[in-house]
Amino acid sequence: MFAEAEADPSLPKDEFKPLEARLRVALLNAQYRRLKQADKALLVVVAGIDGAGKGATINLLNEWMDPRHIRTLAFGPREGEELERPPLWRYWKDLPPKGSTGIVFGSWYAPLILETSRKRPDQNRVDAQAAAIRRFEAMLAAEGVQILKLWFHLSAKAQKARALRLLASPETAWQVSPVDLKVKKKYDRICAGGQIVLNHTDSGHAPWVVIPSADENMRAARTAEAVLAAMRQRGTPRIPPAFVAHGGPARIVDRLGKLDYDARIDKDDYESELGLLQGRLARAARAMRAQERSLVLVFEGQDAAGKGGAIRRVTHALDARQFDITPVSAPNSEALARPYLWRFWRRIPRHGRIAIFDRSWYGRVLVERVEKLTAPAKWRRAYAEINDFEQQLAASGALVLKFWLAITPGEQLERFREREKSPFKNFKITPEDWRNRDKWHEYAAAANEMLARTDVSHAPWHLVSANDKRYARLQVLRHIVEAMEDQL
Amino acid sequence: MFAEAEADPSLPKDEFKPLEARLRVALLNAQYRRLKQADKALLVVVAGIDGAGKGATINLLNEWMDPRHIRTLAFGPREGEELERPPLWRYWKDLPPKGSTGIVFGSWYAPLILETSRKRPDQNRVDAQAAAIRRFEAMLAAEGVQILKLWFHLSAKAQKARALRLLASPETAWQVSPVDLKVKKKYDRICAGGQIVLNHTDSGHAPWVVIPSADENMRAARTAEAVLAAMRQRGTPRIPPAFVAHGGPARIVDRLGKLDYDARIDKDDYESELGLLQGRLARAARAMRAQERSLVLVFEGQDAAGKGGAIRRVTHALDARQFDITPVSAPNSEALARPYLWRFWRRIPRHGRIAIFDRSWYGRVLVERVEKLTAPAKWRRAYAEINDFEQQLAASGALVLKFWLAITPGEQLERFREREKSPFKNFKITPEDWRNRDKWHEYAAAANEMLARTDVSHAPWHLVSANDKRYARLQVLRHIVEAMEDQL
Repeated sequence: MFAEAEADPSLPKDEFKPLEARLRVALLNAQYRRLKQADKALLVVVAGIDGAGKGATINLLNEWMDPRHIRTLAFGPREGEELERPPLWRYWKDLPPKGSTGIVFGSWYAPLILETSRKRPDQNRVDAQAAAIRRFEAMLAAEGVQILKLWFHLSAKAQKARALRLLASPETAWQVSPVDLKVKKKYDRICAGGQIVLNHTDSGHAPWVVIPSADENMRAARTAEAVLAAMRQRGTPRIPPAFVAHGGPARIVDRLGKLDYDARIDKDDYESELGLLQGRLARAARAMRAQERSLVLVFEGQDAAGKGGAIRRVTHALDARQFDITPVSAPNSEALARPYLWRFWRRIPRHGRIAIFDRSWYGRVLVERVEKLTAPAKWRRAYAEINDFEQQLAASGALVLKFWLAITPGEQLERFREREKSPFKNFKITPEDWRNRDKWHEYAAAANEMLARTDVSHAPWHLVSANDKRYARLQVLRHIVEAMEDQL
Repeated sequence: MFAEAEADPSLPKDEFKPLEARLRVALLNAQYRRLKQADKALLVVVAGIDGAGKGATINLLNEWMDPRHIRTLAFGPREGEELERPPLWRYWKDLPPKGSTGIVFGSWYAPLILETSRKRPDQNRVDAQAAAIRRFEAMLAAEGVQILKLWFHLSAKAQKARALRLLASPETAWQVSPVDLKVKKKYDRICAGGQIVLNHTDSGHAPWVVIPSADENMRAARTAEAVLAAMRQRGTPRIPPAFVAHGGPARIVDRLGKLDYDARIDKDDYESELGLLQGRLARAARAMRAQERSLVLVFEGQDAAGKGGAIRRVTHALDARQFDITPVSAPNSEALARPYLWRFWRRIPRHGRIAIFDRSWYGRVLVERVEKLTAPAKWRRAYAEINDFEQQLAASGALVLKFWLAITPGEQLERFREREKSPFKNFKITPEDWRNRDKWHEYAAAANEMLARTDVSHAPWHLVSANDKRYARLQVLRHIVEAMEDQL
């Protein structure tokens, strides 16, 4: 894979000049066409041998294209609040919108390259990290974020020669760190590591392109050609099954149908128990601050199932400074220009904090599925994508708890009528609510499949009988309190 | 102002209960009406005596209203990247959109209260901070962010009693810090400080309301009443002239008309000088990293004046990892839901970085004025608001440089025609460009007034003759390089 690059091929000036002129025009045209179509973003990931001229080449791309529509995303070691979220959080947060181009330095490959370049890489770590990257990139590619990965490469001899050349001039000496000179051993390791990385993560939808980098002209031309080819690619890439996130086979059962909807609690018992549970919750929430943990609560359920009321019984026990509630409705244009999970990644809590979602990313497999807002291939894939997302949350210290508040059609009808009559609640009922009601069984089927495919130990679903609001609220509180006391 | 509160009035339960019921309904209704109208945001600023139950009261508001549409914005001491921006940056960044409510702990009053509560407050500092706050709040109020400020107050005796009561129970002891017990001296100072703060910053458009806080019922009822009254307020507040940002009288001269449009440079001189200036720029930009400074570049000018080309000559000398370019066009819905400067505050650079604006906040007094997108009272006010904004940038370490690239109507016509002919540039020319051309004199008048009113030493305008693109690019580079070499 690196053989050509290690031969340090060069491109004579008289060949380069006319090629450069053609490439610049073509790149700029391709860039503007993409801006206009705005159906895909492009992420160019930059990696490779130190001193191969990565920075200089990216500067050149900015010079050849319109830099106003290129974002250079440079990441160093994770720091500050980045350490309180999953490692991929910072990349999700900064995803450029469709139409634009991002160039990524210090990408999600940095830890993997570090690992594979060790004297003895830990095979399990390498496999796990590579698999996580494959899932991440496959999802981005399927959701309109095209990925091109450039590996800048040259021979050890050329690397050393370039470092000495740069060092010779005060204009360029700053580009070289002293480490760049004791290269040979490090060079061999990086080559071996790079080989492993490329083997594990090269794919048609997120290809690696090796850029021979000893000669500036060759490096510039190859980079421009690779970017141009990526920009000209049309349509959604085919992602091979091995890369697509897969859920295991799930036994879909009618959990909603089997629920005991008669569960009730009387008012006095409710009041006393509510107070006790809220007290325990308050204590558990305060204890959480001291630990490097956070809490993510997801509320789903039929319209009028009582999500808002349940959330209020939870927040009542909390300090307003500790939680954030995100009410989720249809995505705005900013969200539509990115993969669907983007707007949720932005709301992931820091350590010590509580994020409450009133509806959530599960809209993908509920309303978007039933109302046919999303193609079947996409929402089918979403189960595994969501499991992956929640797994990352859990791994970074979040306790993820999900609630489906379940009511019967008769109970819903009664609540709708009550809302219509109440001058105080009639804003809560819209024609859409009545329309959704006609699709009761489709929503129930979607919910049952969701429960079967995404009820996982690191992010469990609690199916709550909610015909009796009091009963439901206590159940929700109890699940939260017990999970927190158990795990925090 | 604190006399009533220091009498520690209380509200008996039998009066409170029916009042509470009415207030809850009214608050919720008012909240939903505002959400629906979405013409104003509400910021509730929380301050007052320690141990007066601020936190508990805000929790109650969350309980009484719909917490899904309230954001609690809690700020501690400035830290991390906050320290690399103006003090108000974090408040700007988190402004809630129109329709919603934000409750602010640790607001922009924290430093002022600290200062006024000192044994000997520095009068100059107090005056300067209070004036900055008045400008900030007047601007927010005029731009659809309503502000209500609550000062929670009680007698020294009641403060101590409350602390002891809270300490007595393990359920509530965590709310009390040991400092709360050695209160008397601190109490007197805070009272005196609060008095000064309220005197300096109370206004009809951003009123302070003192909440008697010794008795929980009284505290809850008064808080709810204050919030309700604010939520019910309609229309835009009248802001007294003393609070409105004022520019001094400016002598508006025809700077655009007096420019020498024949300035030219020949190609050879251009090439050699360009290289020299870019080299100096590269050095200056690298040096900037070591200092706690940043660079903000603003580019304005007629259509086709060559802003893009000038920007590229600047970025060519920079490392792509060091700069961000923000191309500014019409605001999206997220921006329209906030004061007009909000979207620019979000793009303020950290120390060591360079932010380049291709068009900018000056759209307020250019396109928005000429195309009548903004009422005259608003764009007239904007000159002083913008001066204030840039002054804050400069004070936090930014070098702010602004360029107006000026061409003649004839030159523009030639460039438009050229663009229309070129298959490569015709995307750059739209019917709107031709329409704007018909308003040449109005745009010129707006530009001349802008130059007169906002050409300040901490953020100077450079009026650049741009009929000759090469000449203009060198001028831009020279101004940047000289300012950096001079000031950094």
